[in-house]
Amino acid sequence: MGKRIEHDFLGEKEIPQDVYYGIQTLRAIENFHITGIPLMEEPIFVQALGYVKKGAAMANRDLGVLDKNIAEYIIKACDRVIAGEFNNQFLSDLIQGGAGTSVNMNANEVIANIALEMMGKEKGQYEFCHPNNHVNCSQSTNDAYPTAFRIALINKLTGYKEILGDLAGAFLAKGEEFKDVLKMGRTQLQDAVPMSMGDEFKAFATNINEELSRIEDSKRLISEINMGATAIGTGVNAPKGYAVLVTKYLAEITGLELVLAGDLIEATYDAGAYVQLSGVLKRTAVKISKICNDLRLLSSGPRTGLNEINLPPMQPGSSIMPGKVNPVIPEVVNQTAFYVIGADLMVTMAAEAGQLQLNVMEPTISFALFTAITYMSNACKTLKDKCVVGITANADRTREMVMQSIGIVTQLNPIIGYEKCSAIAREALETGKSVHDLAVKEKQWVTQEKWDEIFTFDNLIRPQFIQ
Amino acid sequence: MGKRIEHDFLGEKEIPQDVYYGIQTLRAIENFHITGIPLMEEPIFVQALGYVKKGAAMANRDLGVLDKNIAEYIIKACDRVIAGEFNNQFLSDLIQGGAGTSVNMNANEVIANIALEMMGKEKGQYEFCHPNNHVNCSQSTNDAYPTAFRIALINKLTGYKEILGDLAGAFLAKGEEFKDVLKMGRTQLQDAVPMSMGDEFKAFATNINEELSRIEDSKRLISEINMGATAIGTGVNAPKGYAVLVTKYLAEITGLELVLAGDLIEATYDAGAYVQLSGVLKRTAVKISKICNDLRLLSSGPRTGLNEINLPPMQPGSSIMPGKVNPVIPEVVNQTAFYVIGADLMVTMAAEAGQLQLNVMEPTISFALFTAITYMSNACKTLKDKCVVGITANADRTREMVMQSIGIVTQLNPIIGYEKCSAIAREALETGKSVHDLAVKEKQWVTQEKWDEIFTFDNLIRPQFIQ
Amino acid sequence: MGKRIEHDFLGEKEIPQDVYYGIQTLRAIENFHITGIPLMEEPIFVQALGYVKKGAAMANRDLGVLDKNIAEYIIKACDRVIAGEFNNQFLSDLIQGGAGTSVNMNANEVIANIALEMMGKEKGQYEFCHPNNHVNCSQSTNDAYPTAFRIALINKLTGYKEILGDLAGAFLAKGEEFKDVLKMGRTQLQDAVPMSMGDEFKAFATNINEELSRIEDSKRLISEINMGATAIGTGVNAPKGYAVLVTKYLAEITGLELVLAGDLIEATYDAGAYVQLSGVLKRTAVKISKICNDLRLLSSGPRTGLNEINLPPMQPGSSIMPGKVNPVIPEVVNQTAFYVIGADLMVTMAAEAGQLQLNVMEPTISFALFTAITYMSNACKTLKDKCVVGITANADRTREMVMQSIGIVTQLNPIIGYEKCSAIAREALETGKSVHDLAVKEKQWVTQEKWDEIFTFDNLIRPQFIQ
Amino acid sequence: MGKRIEHDFLGEKEIPQDVYYGIQTLRAIENFHITGIPLMEEPIFVQALGYVKKGAAMANRDLGVLDKNIAEYIIKACDRVIAGEFNNQFLSDLIQGGAGTSVNMNANEVIANIALEMMGKEKGQYEFCHPNNHVNCSQSTNDAYPTAFRIALINKLTGYKEILGDLAGAFLAKGEEFKDVLKMGRTQLQDAVPMSMGDEFKAFATNINEELSRIEDSKRLISEINMGATAIGTGVNAPKGYAVLVTKYLAEITGLELVLAGDLIEATYDAGAYVQLSGVLKRTAVKISKICNDLRLLSSGPRTGLNEINLPPMQPGSSIMPGKVNPVIPEVVNQTAFYVIGADLMVTMAAEAGQLQLNVMEPTISFALFTAITYMSNACKTLKDKCVVGITANADRTREMVMQSIGIVTQLNPIIGYEKCSAIAREALETGKSVHDLAVKEKQWVTQEKWDEIFTFDNLIRPQFIQ
Repeated sequence: MGKRIEHDFLGEKEIPQDVYYGIQTLRAIENFHITGIPLMEEPIFVQALGYVKKGAAMANRDLGVLDKNIAEYIIKACDRVIAGEFNNQFLSDLIQGGAGTSVNMNANEVIANIALEMMGKEKGQYEFCHPNNHVNCSQSTNDAYPTAFRIALINKLTGYKEILGDLAGAFLAKGEEFKDVLKMGRTQLQDAVPMSMGDEFKAFATNINEELSRIEDSKRLISEINMGATAIGTGVNAPKGYAVLVTKYLAEITGLELVLAGDLIEATYDAGAYVQLSGVLKRTAVKISKICNDLRLLSSGPRTGLNEINLPPMQPGSSIMPGKVNPVIPEVVNQTAFYVIGADLMVTMAAEAGQLQLNVMEPTISFALFTAITYMSNACKTLKDKCVVGITANADRTREMVMQSIGIVTQLNPIIGYEKCSAIAREALETGKSVHDLAVKEKQWVTQEKWDEIFTFDNLIRPQFIQ
Repeated sequence: MGKRIEHDFLGEKEIPQDVYYGIQTLRAIENFHITGIPLMEEPIFVQALGYVKKGAAMANRDLGVLDKNIAEYIIKACDRVIAGEFNNQFLSDLIQGGAGTSVNMNANEVIANIALEMMGKEKGQYEFCHPNNHVNCSQSTNDAYPTAFRIALINKLTGYKEILGDLAGAFLAKGEEFKDVLKMGRTQLQDAVPMSMGDEFKAFATNINEELSRIEDSKRLISEINMGATAIGTGVNAPKGYAVLVTKYLAEITGLELVLAGDLIEATYDAGAYVQLSGVLKRTAVKISKICNDLRLLSSGPRTGLNEINLPPMQPGSSIMPGKVNPVIPEVVNQTAFYVIGADLMVTMAAEAGQLQLNVMEPTISFALFTAITYMSNACKTLKDKCVVGITANADRTREMVMQSIGIVTQLNPIIGYEKCSAIAREALETGKSVHDLAVKEKQWVTQEKWDEIFTFDNLIRPQFIQ
Repeated sequence: MGKRIEHDFLGEKEIPQDVYYGIQTLRAIENFHITGIPLMEEPIFVQALGYVKKGAAMANRDLGVLDKNIAEYIIKACDRVIAGEFNNQFLSDLIQGGAGTSVNMNANEVIANIALEMMGKEKGQYEFCHPNNHVNCSQSTNDAYPTAFRIALINKLTGYKEILGDLAGAFLAKGEEFKDVLKMGRTQLQDAVPMSMGDEFKAFATNINEELSRIEDSKRLISEINMGATAIGTGVNAPKGYAVLVTKYLAEITGLELVLAGDLIEATYDAGAYVQLSGVLKRTAVKISKICNDLRLLSSGPRTGLNEINLPPMQPGSSIMPGKVNPVIPEVVNQTAFYVIGADLMVTMAAEAGQLQLNVMEPTISFALFTAITYMSNACKTLKDKCVVGITANADRTREMVMQSIGIVTQLNPIIGYEKCSAIAREALETGKSVHDLAVKEKQWVTQEKWDEIFTFDNLIRPQFIQ
Repeated sequence: MGKRIEHDFLGEKEIPQDVYYGIQTLRAIENFHITGIPLMEEPIFVQALGYVKKGAAMANRDLGVLDKNIAEYIIKACDRVIAGEFNNQFLSDLIQGGAGTSVNMNANEVIANIALEMMGKEKGQYEFCHPNNHVNCSQSTNDAYPTAFRIALINKLTGYKEILGDLAGAFLAKGEEFKDVLKMGRTQLQDAVPMSMGDEFKAFATNINEELSRIEDSKRLISEINMGATAIGTGVNAPKGYAVLVTKYLAEITGLELVLAGDLIEATYDAGAYVQLSGVLKRTAVKISKICNDLRLLSSGPRTGLNEINLPPMQPGSSIMPGKVNPVIPEVVNQTAFYVIGADLMVTMAAEAGQLQLNVMEPTISFALFTAITYMSNACKTLKDKCVVGITANADRTREMVMQSIGIVTQLNPIIGYEKCSAIAREALETGKSVHDLAVKEKQWVTQEKWDEIFTFDNLIRPQFIQ
């Protein structure tokens, strides 16, 4: 296998002739070995780099700062990158120093070499198509990298929203299925008042559906890009009109509603949109973790727990306790939620560490956000497919628990008042007697007729005000 | 001083006759001694409890579930609570168990006793106006408490927004003042390309102004209330039409755009709006912390630092080093930001810990959010008044630094290309020569004429594309 | 009331003649209004400042850099500060800028003025006893402040350890009380195998007792002080032999095992000991939060939960649901634990933000650690007094749950193997039959004799290996 | 390729005949697709599982509960697993539900099938060597999994300590190299007093070396194992004497100082040792992040920053700014530190979420700790090799900065007092004059002779007390 020699500001290096990346990518590979997870593991990011370089080439061509012929070859090369043909050439570790320079140069080098090959030149003959002068024309890492990152994020979020929508849909279906299951509502883990299990599951759906709007809000913030800012937002080296034109082209190519930031100095250092998005991802994780806690609690037992619902058994639960089946799917979702919460802290610290005209910690923000979305997407899909759709209710047991509870005395408040209800409750607790026996038979504070009016199935599940 | 005896579900207690709270508040005071910070330290919350109880009384009166005469006395009592007359009767520790029951009962008891006095009765004669049966009529802690909390939050956020707006305004004014100060932009703490110091300060304003919209978004989420949900969202014990009516009254009384939640079961346990708000507060804190880091960096020196700006001296900086003046105001703001970030974690954990039909950890959420907003409001006001408005620029020094820098070579990229610029940069670095001498005199890659066209004050600050 | 004029590097200010603090404290009060919590709320810190200034005066006296007469007056003044006589003169906000300079100067000024009064001079006549030249002699804020902070921390931790020890003791007593209560052990919220409730409570004691050693480890790290480092650790302005001598005196005065740091440059900027301590405080909080989660779970019910134990009722649980009693004490402890976890993040961020020769964020570290220890001490004392000591067990119910469980089939593993046990478990689950009926009667895989040997009370609680 | 049929409690599945894992591993692979990172990425964990299973087989053999012949085959199979021969058979996702059951069963199944092959049987003929009855004999996931996890952690920490020791060594060498470089010390980013750059770098070494002791402390806590606890700590199904014997064997096999926990009930649910270790890892990360912040600050420039030191250039710093070289290695280390801090939060939440007799979240704790140690080991190695060893000092520049500073006036405090020094400092600041000119020439407060005595190189770097 042949080698070629490339050089940069710091010296020369040998590059295997068959690879498309160049000297700066090679330096990045040598310099950064942290997570062992290369850029190509996020193909959606590689694709977005292709979009950015294509949009820039189109704008540069139109504005006459890039030779039309070279521009066309760059555009074709970008199309092949966008199609995923060269994912395996993107090898920088996801966590790197240099504020994304390695990633940007990786894209510049790969695209230059693809273009060169398509021109009939050798890889490395950068006089015909140069990573910096041509592919990176009118750009800096400081605008190209965050723009690509944002495009990738939006596309990733679109997939996540679908998965969340499906999960909410599965809970809604269970809400419908369980609408006639009477059960005890609990507050502070103590018996409270009766409710429909259907309403409990419908609330899970409401809870998750609300996240779709929050993610949409985040996407709007993420859609603000800073192309044309170049190094620090002053637009040095970019031709007049370029910022607006490249933004227009990028919106067209990606089909996304990208807009140009109003203050390019601010936009070039600000990590606010990432913090906001990370906060939303955390919020979703917190909600879904709470739901999984509930599923585990409601399915506890089978004989010495609440045992209100059954989760589909996915695997034997114990290497020693025969017959044990554990809520392994909610458990793994809880743990994924903790990852997302930890990732939010990474984003927070990285955002706070920005200094002066740039936030150099953006690679770790991208690592945190990409992994958080990927892991949580996997978890939510798993939760729906391997748990929620198969949940069944123990309706007899839950109804029985309601009727033997003390909490139903609350239903009598409007008729006999809080203090008499308290007296019944106290006596029920101490003696083990039922509320019915105490209220109707012993104390005769409520007639059997009134009791029957109140304690219907419908009125327990969706209480009407009866005095 | 006389005493009265009050009793509840658990027994009897003596209450000093002159206090307006009753037995349940007394139990709360005895049970919860954690922070030592009583509820009355958040008068805006006490006021909001008054609003909620007033709105409920009005709705109950209209719907005929509360005697008109009692209702009117409750309403008048609430008006006095709203006016702040009884703040010192609200004594529960801000962090309590019981999901807010102590706070709700504190309000119920105080209002009942004010009403009784106004009726000409003795405090404690609850047969005429009862904390639970009358003041708390059609309510549960689980709807009254979060509704009051939300009203208080919205009002607190209004004040915070004003302070942030003022701070952004102060930065904007400095941006205007410094618009002709040429300085070196820096990325990754390394010299980058020139810019206007005015643009740097204007970016701070942009950065903060954006928060006003984010807070407004949060207020919209917080405005969704669950009055009428009562215990768990099924509305047990609330009369038909009550939820809508009390929401309408509350919106009128408070002047806020309150709306009724669509899914009351979900709304009664969900802490999502708090997590979202906390995320926004954290985002603002992160941004302002970054700005303060920059102010400290830019004012470092005076002789061995960057020394680009001077912060107004606020106090001698050292007990041992004479003449030392430190950036104490940005420092205190940084630390306040860390508090807000820590508070966000409290909110996150509390939200995740919600179980089944209620989030019992809401008091700690209220503690975290109230203190975060208060401390950060104080910090931002301090930052504006005692620092930003008095900042001055060392324009001569910053201009000199630009002209002696290597970074200005970037301006030559479009003319002589990245590689020749690199060669100049390398030589400048190694020899200490200036870019001008190398580019124009030694190498003659640029004519003096072209140099003069490029290196004007205007073109350095807001570069035009010159080839 | 008279006024006196004081001046400093920045100018003059009027001070009310009756106060002991001076111009720099006044500036601090004016500059820092963040939390509203003044230094005097931590009297243990004020006391520690007295110790430090006393120790320094003794060493300075011995080394001849401080006039003996002035030194003796400073020492007497310090004794009065140590005794708490002047707590109300310590008014800096707990969160301040300036790396503690305001706190150090507050001490210097108050002590100087006390000394002046004792000398028969007027407050403010600093030519006779000067805050900087005499009280702060051979010191800088950068050694005096952290040393005082560390002394205060050690004393605070001593109190905390006692409270934790008491709490562990209370759990141990319950462990003894419940040692014959048979109950179902649960893993992953699913029925596992039987155990003694006594062992469950004893484990809580073990869990907490372990913290005493961890806190002791932390105290050892905190005991390393940097007196004599002065401004940055080079010891500028401190006489030869001072560092060792002042450390010896401080150890004597405080009765603590204080040692001088080996590398004073490092010791002056390093916040590692605080991070370590905060991590330990967090660990304790995490453990106790887990225990409180368990207490709430085990006491859930009364009719539709686990209902294994009863927590002492502390207050009516609901403003609407009569008879409801909630686990309010564990709830408030959980919330306090969240505070401690949030505080740990504050400490982390503050420690990471240290720059070069000093960590300027130490005041926020002190705020976080002091409040975390105070709140958690309060919470643990409350937990013991108002909850643990009054817990009772529902032994009949827990025994019944064990015998009706499927989990007891695990006891048969060594005799009939995992696969046969699984078959019994599956059938029990599907049919509702008992393990005994299936194993002994239907399948006859175990004789009644063997069954009786295995299922004794003792063997269930502390199983022997029976084949 | 052939298939075999395996069955478990939930049914049957086809397994490719060439794989060594069985049905439960297959279920785990199907159930958990979260991170995409399989167990085999932590070969040190696979090895530890081999140790645990081997130790258990030896103890079971000695105690007569496992046939000697089967035991020997299991032991041989374990040796091959320990040697790494079967790493590629360990395929469970690092984040899983089930509290480690999948990992434990993966080991049980692989070892059983290796043993079967060595016996001359077919894989899957579990009647001759059964994953549960034989390989898992006297064990539960709840003791085998955490024990293996702990052994793996200790071994990982040993490697991490070496890397940290090397890093500290590199800083120490620089400390020696720079010991005669005079530079300005800075507190609060403001000029303070002079120091030796060697002492600054030596302090970094001290700072890191201290971590070695803290990690050693953690290893001691981690060394406490719970073998013999089986399901919940009661030791059900384990023969008498087993716990002590297996611990002894494990200590021998691994060469580690493993000890048996005193309270097995507590040890089986407690995650305290992980929280402690995570806190230590965070502390190390915080310290190293601070050091990297300093390196970036000290190397800022080259022309408009502090420019005290030069980091070795690792890659061109910009795609647009020629000649720019950025501190990419410290930057990547900062970001890795943020990961570790985020991971600590994951561990915290997972530990807090433990319930009753087990912490089901242990897999996410293992994920967090393993990745934190791996990433930080990589980062620290990179920091040493690619940055620290190549740092050079700009000694002329730093000396010049000292002599032109105002901060050196502090050196005159003991001679002319704080107030006169302040006057000089103020005038120097306002007029730009040097301290020397003001003190010696203009005001004549210090003689030239005294000046020369004080301002020697030695006395600036390591000041003696001169009056």
